[in-house]
Amino acid sequence: MVVVMAADATAEDVAHVVERVEALGGKAFVSQGVVRTIIGLVGDIDGFHGLNLRAMRGVAAVHRISDPYKLVSRQHHPERSTVWVGKVGAQVPIGPMTFTFIAGPCAVETPEQTLEAAIMAKAAGATLLRGGAYKPRTSPYAFQGLGRKGLDILAAVGEATGLPVVTEVVDARDVAEVAEQADMLQIGTRNMANFGLLQAVGEAGKPVLLKRGMTATIEEWLMAAEYVAQRGNLDIVLCERGIRTFEPATRNTLDISAVPIAQSASHLPVIVDPSHAAGRRDLVVPLARAAIGVGADGVIVDVHPDPEVALCDGPQALHGSELRALAQAVRQLPPLVGRGPAEAASITPAG
Amino acid sequence: MVVVMAADATAEDVAHVVERVEALGGKAFVSQGVVRTIIGLVGDIDGFHGLNLRAMRGVAAVHRISDPYKLVSRQHHPERSTVWVGKVGAQVPIGPMTFTFIAGPCAVETPEQTLEAAIMAKAAGATLLRGGAYKPRTSPYAFQGLGRKGLDILAAVGEATGLPVVTEVVDARDVAEVAEQADMLQIGTRNMANFGLLQAVGEAGKPVLLKRGMTATIEEWLMAAEYVAQRGNLDIVLCERGIRTFEPATRNTLDISAVPIAQSASHLPVIVDPSHAAGRRDLVVPLARAAIGVGADGVIVDVHPDPEVALCDGPQALHGSELRALAQAVRQLPPLVGRGPAEAASITPAG
Amino acid sequence: MVVVMAADATAEDVAHVVERVEALGGKAFVSQGVVRTIIGLVGDIDGFHGLNLRAMRGVAAVHRISDPYKLVSRQHHPERSTVWVGKVGAQVPIGPMTFTFIAGPCAVETPEQTLEAAIMAKAAGATLLRGGAYKPRTSPYAFQGLGRKGLDILAAVGEATGLPVVTEVVDARDVAEVAEQADMLQIGTRNMANFGLLQAVGEAGKPVLLKRGMTATIEEWLMAAEYVAQRGNLDIVLCERGIRTFEPATRNTLDISAVPIAQSASHLPVIVDPSHAAGRRDLVVPLARAAIGVGADGVIVDVHPDPEVALCDGPQALHGSELRALAQAVRQLPPLVGRGPAEAASITPAG
Amino acid sequence: MVVVMAADATAEDVAHVVERVEALGGKAFVSQGVVRTIIGLVGDIDGFHGLNLRAMRGVAAVHRISDPYKLVSRQHHPERSTVWVGKVGAQVPIGPMTFTFIAGPCAVETPEQTLEAAIMAKAAGATLLRGGAYKPRTSPYAFQGLGRKGLDILAAVGEATGLPVVTEVVDARDVAEVAEQADMLQIGTRNMANFGLLQAVGEAGKPVLLKRGMTATIEEWLMAAEYVAQRGNLDIVLCERGIRTFEPATRNTLDISAVPIAQSASHLPVIVDPSHAAGRRDLVVPLARAAIGVGADGVIVDVHPDPEVALCDGPQALHGSELRALAQAVRQLPPLVGRGPAEAASITPAG
Repeated sequence: MVVVMAADATAEDVAHVVERVEALGGKAFVSQGVVRTIIGLVGDIDGFHGLNLRAMRGVAAVHRISDPYKLVSRQHHPERSTVWVGKVGAQVPIGPMTFTFIAGPCAVETPEQTLEAAIMAKAAGATLLRGGAYKPRTSPYAFQGLGRKGLDILAAVGEATGLPVVTEVVDARDVAEVAEQADMLQIGTRNMANFGLLQAVGEAGKPVLLKRGMTATIEEWLMAAEYVAQRGNLDIVLCERGIRTFEPATRNTLDISAVPIAQSASHLPVIVDPSHAAGRRDLVVPLARAAIGVGADGVIVDVHPDPEVALCDGPQALHGSELRALAQAVRQLPPLVGRGPAEAASITPAG
Repeated sequence: MVVVMAADATAEDVAHVVERVEALGGKAFVSQGVVRTIIGLVGDIDGFHGLNLRAMRGVAAVHRISDPYKLVSRQHHPERSTVWVGKVGAQVPIGPMTFTFIAGPCAVETPEQTLEAAIMAKAAGATLLRGGAYKPRTSPYAFQGLGRKGLDILAAVGEATGLPVVTEVVDARDVAEVAEQADMLQIGTRNMANFGLLQAVGEAGKPVLLKRGMTATIEEWLMAAEYVAQRGNLDIVLCERGIRTFEPATRNTLDISAVPIAQSASHLPVIVDPSHAAGRRDLVVPLARAAIGVGADGVIVDVHPDPEVALCDGPQALHGSELRALAQAVRQLPPLVGRGPAEAASITPAG
Repeated sequence: MVVVMAADATAEDVAHVVERVEALGGKAFVSQGVVRTIIGLVGDIDGFHGLNLRAMRGVAAVHRISDPYKLVSRQHHPERSTVWVGKVGAQVPIGPMTFTFIAGPCAVETPEQTLEAAIMAKAAGATLLRGGAYKPRTSPYAFQGLGRKGLDILAAVGEATGLPVVTEVVDARDVAEVAEQADMLQIGTRNMANFGLLQAVGEAGKPVLLKRGMTATIEEWLMAAEYVAQRGNLDIVLCERGIRTFEPATRNTLDISAVPIAQSASHLPVIVDPSHAAGRRDLVVPLARAAIGVGADGVIVDVHPDPEVALCDGPQALHGSELRALAQAVRQLPPLVGRGPAEAASITPAG
Repeated sequence: MVVVMAADATAEDVAHVVERVEALGGKAFVSQGVVRTIIGLVGDIDGFHGLNLRAMRGVAAVHRISDPYKLVSRQHHPERSTVWVGKVGAQVPIGPMTFTFIAGPCAVETPEQTLEAAIMAKAAGATLLRGGAYKPRTSPYAFQGLGRKGLDILAAVGEATGLPVVTEVVDARDVAEVAEQADMLQIGTRNMANFGLLQAVGEAGKPVLLKRGMTATIEEWLMAAEYVAQRGNLDIVLCERGIRTFEPATRNTLDISAVPIAQSASHLPVIVDPSHAAGRRDLVVPLARAAIGVGADGVIVDVHPDPEVALCDGPQALHGSELRALAQAVRQLPPLVGRGPAEAASITPAG
């Protein structure tokens, strides 16, 4: 931690900072510059935060140096992690050795539509099924998902197709119920900073898919993962899904650079959601190929047997020729960047 | 609603849109341009959304024309509303006739600190006391607030000073408990899109202070208010508190234009939080004066008897000469823009 | 300047940094932390930049501490400056003692329209006339301004009304010609980083109105002013005119906080353009009042005798009742924040 | 063009709009909705703009429907274009059939450094040499490039290695001189809206590399290309180089989606600059692979024989193992997305 004193700070101001740091058992190294004095702090960083250094007289700025996240940081866990999803014996990996393809309908509407979408997804190479039963919608007048009934449909379709199920949970009060039926719990972009919900999924005993808040920095995203991890659950997969910028041509701007940055800051796997980032079907395949190129550990996409009648996000759901193009990309490109397919049998969990 | 067809849309594509709209009982007016055809829709707009027009073949864009919010819109409720906070007989107004000054500590730390801050606030002209018992923090390792114990302190201090209390609620499971002790429930910026929480405060029977999400558009903010209103609670005060932009000099960029825009789109009162927007003490007074100038219905600011030891957001808390400057601005400027002081006795609730 | 070493930096890496700094005659203070080492540099900062410290092995980050701008910084020039515009004997001040109202048509269209707008502006209290002869437009097919002919009209109208003239220059090749006719040269938002143009106006011998780039940080804006200053011209007025954000309700988001921040970082006057920020007529008056509240040194607004037929930015030009409301605000509010009117006779240049 | 009337617009307001449109020879189709009336306009769109419809009484919004750019639009030129760079007989293509690799030093410093960088670039597979002689820098105290001397060095090195040369021009007054020595003129991100410069390169008779403004929308970028095209030069290559967002981990956020969007809106080739977007060496290779995956027509990267001593942007220049990794990606991946190498002999200009 580095404290930068203001140009007009007095010797007393400097002494005051040093004194308080030392009172906490820390060490303060003072370097007197021509214009300003800087003080380097060594010791209990979290304790120093309690000092509220920024508010002290004569302090111009405080620069934190260490990562604010611990459990998810790669600093103390240099090897990248693999997260396993599904029932024992048929677990699907998400991690550095494989490229995992997750697909399914944005919203579960009917048993038929869900089964059809799952079959499409599996045929295209997907090894995990996504589907929304609880939908967070900006309008209280929009379709909010089938809830409990949607969970039942998803579980049955997962069973029928042999695909483990990923579904979103939007309320801490629903976590136990969703965790009973789903194989992986998704935290959506609007809930990335819903700390009560993060803690609840941290205690639920199922892997977590944590989408980046559409306006969260990468550091805040990793702090959100830390909330989950701190409750004892390190089976977390990060998902980049676009950030809010001034560009109106896409719903959000896919921050493709966030993938290698998050992978180098954290040991957690990082996947990409090209469907929700762009909000446009014609961009899903190119962006999925970009995700493979940049080194993502997987993609998650919307598919729908009949996008024209979809109750949610139809304009971005794949089908037909686009889905075939994506299937081909997912088959051909990952081996060129050193990855195998993510099927249950392809690699096996350690231990 | 206006549907813009693609340049290469066929007559069949146009007919298909018209047919589906008419099947729903709507009317479709086709205007054939030189390059493109546009179709104006009249009828049940919500039904048209179900059609998923954007996904139909040949459709290039769909423009919505009416406001997506209803209960909070000024379209059907042209008169601006006043929200009354506090016990019957001593209610404080927030609305177009007055300028309301809300102040208190960012976080409740001890009974002494809270009482001292409340006395400071009242002396400076504040008529409502703010204070945080539950704090949403980006780090799981940061001070999370005193919780239930903080609520007790706040209630006692509110009682002692005669100031109604505004406090944040961060979890739907805590709403009933907080509503029992507080006079107004605050939804923080990180929870603006926590729809379960919005619905819970919509049913709690207390006025709501709804902060704008730091990355929410004004329309999304009004949609969040609609979530609260839809549960029967129209006592909502909107609070602009800065948005996330590329500018690093302030924590967030106060979107001062949002005040008149929200006031013209919605009948709800709109206040400004200059403390959290800037994150810098030296900007609080100028920004509060800007808020008065732009026509806000009030301000909410952090005060602390000793900012240097504050457990939360000390760098932005006012005290001493800055608080006196703010008190003076709040006294002198509002009359020039046609407003009176917001004391319990100054105006009285209708009926 | 502070160099933060990576967690895995070696003692050699540290020694290498120290050695290079000392080779340049600087001093390096090494503070060895538990996780990382930090090095404080004292001496010739500009020389250190040449070292390209960020690229050295083991270096994680470099924090600059001093302001990168010198001539426009308030650090070595604590008193705020006043810039005088117009012919000797009738100069209009822009600075901390006054509030200056600048108005006129966005684009000069005809002698009649310009004269009429100037008369409206003067009647409303404006003491400087703005008007565009050269217009930078995003489309090559849009009206580009009358050019030389527009300059003649402006000069004649300025003469007739006694108002000094502010006009934009968009090309370094036009600077001499524009400087001959205008009293103040405006650099528009799109040219804030056109360094050749900045240097040209720095040598032109006329005061400069420097609009903030719509996507420039405050620091970059001050660096642009430094380009002008470095050519010997310190008669620079900064103008905040909105930045690009995700919010679509306004054309740009007026960054009202930038006013006090720029005033505290630089000694130059800072004014606000509420017309171009919002792009909406109904926001001009509230935003102008916010500008007065926040402590701006003036405002610049578009007026037009008949906005409906304006060739440029008609939707934001004031007339009629709105212009009267603005005139009233400019008359009544500034005295409450310690400012007088900016008439040629109100204060006089020193010396 | 669609005009949306306000809810309280009168029949006279509607009639007034219709009348003015018809006076210009256009047609106006009126659709009266339950709440609002909409008017579809057919005819001379540019003429309608002159009407300033937005400023008319009763008008709530005006939606433009056709693309505002013409010459660079794909609407009237559905086939994607190939731009040829270099001397006749040894021209290098940039377009849909190939993947073009452009590399070289950010700034030309010495003949030796430039030659060494060019040899590195060529060995890695580059077929065009980039290098900066004129550098636009945010600080007037930073290295501004060697200017004319740098051009001579570049031309000599291009001659020696057989690589056509791309270099930036920052001032309209330098265009003729730069065009004499360089094979392709680059417009940098800060000059994308410098319309005088765009027109000057439009008349210079050399291909243009047009970087996206770091804060420009895709539409504004295409409008800038239209400025060049309108002067008769359609040999324009677009270059995505990152946009400004709230994320601080990268210098800018590479907007990878902009590549397929620009390719579908315009017939011009689109390449990616991963070096300047990220500003971090470790991201250049992953982002270049993402660019190939998304379907870009090429990449442009910084290389330097000794990044530690680079005078400009050293932290992002490739060398050693990273350059080898990039060379491998550029060789292996493009064929998988249907592209060949961009060598002078690989395909030949039509006609």
